[in-house]
Amino acid sequence: MANLGFVGLGVMGGRIAKRLLDSGHAVTGYNRTRSKARWLLDAGMTWADSPKDVARACDVTFSMVSNTEALLAITGGENGVLAGLGPGKIYVDMSTVGPAASRELSALVADKGARMLDAPVSGSVATLDQGQLTFMVGGDIDVFERVKPILLDVGPKATHVGDNGLAVSMKVATNLSLAVHMLAFSEGLLLAEKSGIKRETAVEVLLNSVIASPMLKYRGPFVLDMPDEAWFDVNMMQKDMGLALELGRQVDVPLPTASVTNEYLTAARGMGLADQDFAVIFEVLARMSGVSEG
Amino acid sequence: MANLGFVGLGVMGGRIAKRLLDSGHAVTGYNRTRSKARWLLDAGMTWADSPKDVARACDVTFSMVSNTEALLAITGGENGVLAGLGPGKIYVDMSTVGPAASRELSALVADKGARMLDAPVSGSVATLDQGQLTFMVGGDIDVFERVKPILLDVGPKATHVGDNGLAVSMKVATNLSLAVHMLAFSEGLLLAEKSGIKRETAVEVLLNSVIASPMLKYRGPFVLDMPDEAWFDVNMMQKDMGLALELGRQVDVPLPTASVTNEYLTAARGMGLADQDFAVIFEVLARMSGVSEG
Amino acid sequence: MANLGFVGLGVMGGRIAKRLLDSGHAVTGYNRTRSKARWLLDAGMTWADSPKDVARACDVTFSMVSNTEALLAITGGENGVLAGLGPGKIYVDMSTVGPAASRELSALVADKGARMLDAPVSGSVATLDQGQLTFMVGGDIDVFERVKPILLDVGPKATHVGDNGLAVSMKVATNLSLAVHMLAFSEGLLLAEKSGIKRETAVEVLLNSVIASPMLKYRGPFVLDMPDEAWFDVNMMQKDMGLALELGRQVDVPLPTASVTNEYLTAARGMGLADQDFAVIFEVLARMSGVSEG
Amino acid sequence: MANLGFVGLGVMGGRIAKRLLDSGHAVTGYNRTRSKARWLLDAGMTWADSPKDVARACDVTFSMVSNTEALLAITGGENGVLAGLGPGKIYVDMSTVGPAASRELSALVADKGARMLDAPVSGSVATLDQGQLTFMVGGDIDVFERVKPILLDVGPKATHVGDNGLAVSMKVATNLSLAVHMLAFSEGLLLAEKSGIKRETAVEVLLNSVIASPMLKYRGPFVLDMPDEAWFDVNMMQKDMGLALELGRQVDVPLPTASVTNEYLTAARGMGLADQDFAVIFEVLARMSGVSEG
Repeated sequence: MANLGFVGLGVMGGRIAKRLLDSGHAVTGYNRTRSKARWLLDAGMTWADSPKDVARACDVTFSMVSNTEALLAITGGENGVLAGLGPGKIYVDMSTVGPAASRELSALVADKGARMLDAPVSGSVATLDQGQLTFMVGGDIDVFERVKPILLDVGPKATHVGDNGLAVSMKVATNLSLAVHMLAFSEGLLLAEKSGIKRETAVEVLLNSVIASPMLKYRGPFVLDMPDEAWFDVNMMQKDMGLALELGRQVDVPLPTASVTNEYLTAARGMGLADQDFAVIFEVLARMSGVSEG
Repeated sequence: MANLGFVGLGVMGGRIAKRLLDSGHAVTGYNRTRSKARWLLDAGMTWADSPKDVARACDVTFSMVSNTEALLAITGGENGVLAGLGPGKIYVDMSTVGPAASRELSALVADKGARMLDAPVSGSVATLDQGQLTFMVGGDIDVFERVKPILLDVGPKATHVGDNGLAVSMKVATNLSLAVHMLAFSEGLLLAEKSGIKRETAVEVLLNSVIASPMLKYRGPFVLDMPDEAWFDVNMMQKDMGLALELGRQVDVPLPTASVTNEYLTAARGMGLADQDFAVIFEVLARMSGVSEG
Repeated sequence: MANLGFVGLGVMGGRIAKRLLDSGHAVTGYNRTRSKARWLLDAGMTWADSPKDVARACDVTFSMVSNTEALLAITGGENGVLAGLGPGKIYVDMSTVGPAASRELSALVADKGARMLDAPVSGSVATLDQGQLTFMVGGDIDVFERVKPILLDVGPKATHVGDNGLAVSMKVATNLSLAVHMLAFSEGLLLAEKSGIKRETAVEVLLNSVIASPMLKYRGPFVLDMPDEAWFDVNMMQKDMGLALELGRQVDVPLPTASVTNEYLTAARGMGLADQDFAVIFEVLARMSGVSEG
Repeated sequence: MANLGFVGLGVMGGRIAKRLLDSGHAVTGYNRTRSKARWLLDAGMTWADSPKDVARACDVTFSMVSNTEALLAITGGENGVLAGLGPGKIYVDMSTVGPAASRELSALVADKGARMLDAPVSGSVATLDQGQLTFMVGGDIDVFERVKPILLDVGPKATHVGDNGLAVSMKVATNLSLAVHMLAFSEGLLLAEKSGIKRETAVEVLLNSVIASPMLKYRGPFVLDMPDEAWFDVNMMQKDMGLALELGRQVDVPLPTASVTNEYLTAARGMGLADQDFAVIFEVLARMSGVSEG
């Protein structure tokens, strides 16, 4: 059993680290705010004082942060992951970041004699809690084969999609559908409601129809009762949409539904709803339909 | 066990009639082209020479036709369903038609002393074959309760959504997501492919992710191998989108993703792809991305 | 000088009839509400008791009504224009209606031995008042040549675009840009305003830039001061957009900007702004941007 | 008469410098490729060996480059404009760049004791040649007043829109309409053409209608005869659209027509048309409509 490291112990990263601990792995962790990692230390995790210290102490270091800037912050500088890497070590980043940035980072890791994988997840906290989180993985196939058993301790499936950076491309390509599906769902729901069908009934029908993806199954009911705390807020969703739209321009793929949907996320911000779960895109459309007063 | 009638024995209607026969119901049927109903007569169905004759002979008459015009054709005139209805009889239309037309028809049915339900289905031939077809039902609740056991002989779920016409509204509200999901899926797929991921791999990842609705699970693989015969072609899909967009204007609900997607169905027609399954919307985007030559 | 008839003396039709009177023509007119034609009778117009009477009395009969239904109402029936037409007579409809309806009407006119032109206008009341209204004309070229001098008494230009019905197609093809330009203008204006530029300054810059069409020159300032009475309200604009979108589906031309804009007109209705000039599309976007409270 | 400098003597910059020379100003210029400035040296311009040398030699230095990166290249470093600025000097950048970058640059200029204006132009080479180029200007009003007479030697109007950076915001807010108008024009044109109207006729009607902005007047005819050399190619147009979309996200303004149009520019790239004038967006839609084979 390898000695594992984990940098970035937020809502998602923390839960993944816990699963690794529960599977019997020794885990050394670091988080910018130590207090948020208290429950993991109680569960047997070893603390390290910097990302560098994590990487130096471990065979395989994982990280999970919120965006490209945060990834650059934990990997660069004298206390960063890169400073702790060396020959034989493996670094696996699970964050959703810009594909180009991930690819460039993998080159810096190789300069240290280490190997990198990008391994973003498909699913949310709910998916993880149900043991259904899956991984897309980019990087050399032999490194993938070595890390795969560890990923399967977290969720049921890890798919190798290609070279370094391609897994985050795949993630970005997947995530654009999240917001699009939520907006299309909202369109159908408001059509039904303004036709005279109760919102609860319409939600039930839609979520038992052929369009009911796992994402809609858990997020669709939010339109009846928004959660107090966002699972994935408007700003986070728009970050991912921005990565998709940027990638579309780079590789020359028009993104008609993603681009139209992104403007409704912008409207959510304009209407003061940026901090809510992105299911609030329903509220934007409800106001435009005269159903909600705002 | 009531004496059942069925008008419109095409790909979908015929299969539903067969399920009713298989469940032990006596079924009297009519189809414009008699030869297409041969297999049902062989399975024990009784033939009637007109929609009127079906309605006259049966307690509950079902119908399933392809659009509003066809519904008006089988119900009106001296040989239509209406001419055969009378007090105590029930008429259940399963077609996806304009909500206003369905509502007006239910009033004409009431004028005859009979009762009507609109009961469009959620799902396709594949869903039906798997025994997973569900029904949305509009009309009086007591009529719904009487018909419900028969519907449950076809599929696992029948939901009463409200008054006459509201079930087709609900159907239209559901179906708009079909085309939108297919286009968003295509956007993600082409992003992945032009980034360097194999199309097969990208399809596999997407169809194992949280966005994989039942519809995408069966239709998504079409982008790897288009079926020889369309399950639901561009023109049929655009008919449903047209009903949704018309309803949106009537009840004042903006439909951003539905409207942008509908223009890609129009493009499929412009590019000569109208007769193919609407999954061909992928091909439209592929040509715009320079991946396909046309 | 031919004996001219005019059916439909509303805001636009009335003003055109007045120009014909001012140019020295004898004009016989009919309007559903006679009181609204009082000022024209005072100016020398002769009254007729029905569209049929106008057509019977005149060599060339013009009409200008608000939509396809109104056109069918004034032309059909025992008191309609068709009933008054006969060999040698000419009928010129200036309304913006469905191209198919116009074409079918021209066939009915031909059945009477008369000839028809569709001659919709480009421009609004303001354009007309400035003597700048132009005509697009569909129908046989020899009929066009005979009517052209009369049209030039109203405005500076009349262009023959092709067969019967094609001028309304051309009109519909032109008008879709009106709403699109107004929405794009609103986007630019709100970008400027939320960046810190005064709305008045931004309007001035935009209306002195290369994007300032004649339409924007007169309608753009509405965002600073909405007119008490709509020149062309949301419902009228959406009627024209509907004709364009329907034509697009018929001839297989995707209409990306028209379709996205149409949903904002729907939003204007949902937000209770249907009766205002369609420049109110700015207000829809302003509310989505958090600039306006509604 | 002040001693003027000009950095960036490309198609647009060179012509503006020529106008300044023609108005009697002494102009010192620098261009990365000296040979392209030969005609200006022949016309009396003085050469300088670097942006720094221009700024050091002149009271007021102008620049006109193609994007934010180029602006940073000519202003930064030991040979950049900043290195040559000092107390009392004025620097006026006419480029269309990111508003934030322009604002940051103005702060660096102020650190040198100098003053900066952003003064992007409205119009193209054609507008300039007709003497109709206008300026939007951002920065302190007293600096604007001093520079204004020089700008009026180039074109008829210079409007102060606010603080540093706001003129490029205004420019970006204006330019999004260019591509949107061109796409809406293409939609109308193809609707007309596929209805049976000759393309030439449809162009003539549209360009004599109320939607005919100055931009459409000169660029619309490109659909009949694309220019050998792009005036403003797809990549340049998309750069400006990208700036607008980025600004929209920053200040929370949804940009529905701009975002949908931008995807058609991406399609132009996917279809291999990136180097053509952005009027080629017509060709994208023509292929989607089956009018053009590609």
